[in-house]
Amino acid sequence: MTKQVQFWFDFASTYSYLSAVRIEQAARQKGVAVSWQPFLLGPIFAAQGWDSSPFRLYPAKGRYMWRDMERICADRGLAFQRQQIFPQSSLTAARIGLALDDMGQRAAFARAVFAAEFGDGRDISDPEVLAECLAACDAPVAFLDRAQDPDIKAALFDQVDRAKSLGIFGAPSFVAGTELFWGDDRLDAALDWATQI
Amino acid sequence: MTKQVQFWFDFASTYSYLSAVRIEQAARQKGVAVSWQPFLLGPIFAAQGWDSSPFRLYPAKGRYMWRDMERICADRGLAFQRQQIFPQSSLTAARIGLALDDMGQRAAFARAVFAAEFGDGRDISDPEVLAECLAACDAPVAFLDRAQDPDIKAALFDQVDRAKSLGIFGAPSFVAGTELFWGDDRLDAALDWATQI
Repeated sequence: MTKQVQFWFDFASTYSYLSAVRIEQAARQKGVAVSWQPFLLGPIFAAQGWDSSPFRLYPAKGRYMWRDMERICADRGLAFQRQQIFPQSSLTAARIGLALDDMGQRAAFARAVFAAEFGDGRDISDPEVLAECLAACDAPVAFLDRAQDPDIKAALFDQVDRAKSLGIFGAPSFVAGTELFWGDDRLDAALDWATQI
Repeated sequence: MTKQVQFWFDFASTYSYLSAVRIEQAARQKGVAVSWQPFLLGPIFAAQGWDSSPFRLYPAKGRYMWRDMERICADRGLAFQRQQIFPQSSLTAARIGLALDDMGQRAAFARAVFAAEFGDGRDISDPEVLAECLAACDAPVAFLDRAQDPDIKAALFDQVDRAKSLGIFGAPSFVAGTELFWGDDRLDAALDWATQI
């Protein structure tokens, strides 16, 4: 299986949750491999003058997003809780995700984090929650400490730069060949593109 | 046919074009009537501190939008030209659209304007172009002058206030009952909602 799509996500992103829970099955059906790419939207938003999520900066857009997510999750039978704190700090989760070299383990960790956050309403900056997510994907709890290693911190900086150079401005984003697709609504289009290159 | 969806659009909005060309057929198949509601995004963007389209203010988002539109239009067999001027001034077109009381005529006018603009790359603030669009929907060319009437100008102000009060922050938007849906990607969801209330 050489056809591939890159799945760029931020652990604090509601719509990334939607894609995280369905991308593997959707990709498998089309013979496409998924490369999970955690990154941070914060520095990308900051570069365009936003000091928080657009869903906080623009209240009408924020109100809409929560209702839109509720409707979609109800349709798809997905657990969903409106967050007390939004956006959550996704820094440590992103570092751990990046530190997990094994793509299967990284994907399982990501799904566990998203489920804890948006399904169960838990705080994904809490080391205990992250330890449970590591356990859920059979990864050593030592990866919690890896998040503090300078090389992992540097790797996440590089990852954000890579996202910027790909033209990424939001999450989830998908890259198939040289084509960028933005939003859970474009997942199928991205997979179709990947099958045709 | 009492089930209805409101279709809120700005004539300068690329994604509104996508919905304008397909909403009537999609709605008819589900037994839903469409209420065409032209408005202006400018005052809504201004209220959140933007002095232009987000596609101009945020270049990465803008570059993406044009490519996304190209791909979607190619998929759907729709003519599409990148615009020399973007966003175009949609003020006169919106006033004329609002002045056309007959919903069938308003819809036909809107489709003609969108086709001239995004299909043929023409300037929709040009009275000659608007006159052709009026002719295309069998409406008197006198509607060009109606756009200057104080009552129509006031009606468009009210229309933008109505959009704000509905929580609208972008276009296209759809309202079914008390539910708001944003984006051409939500057209089917909006129609489904309309059938269930």
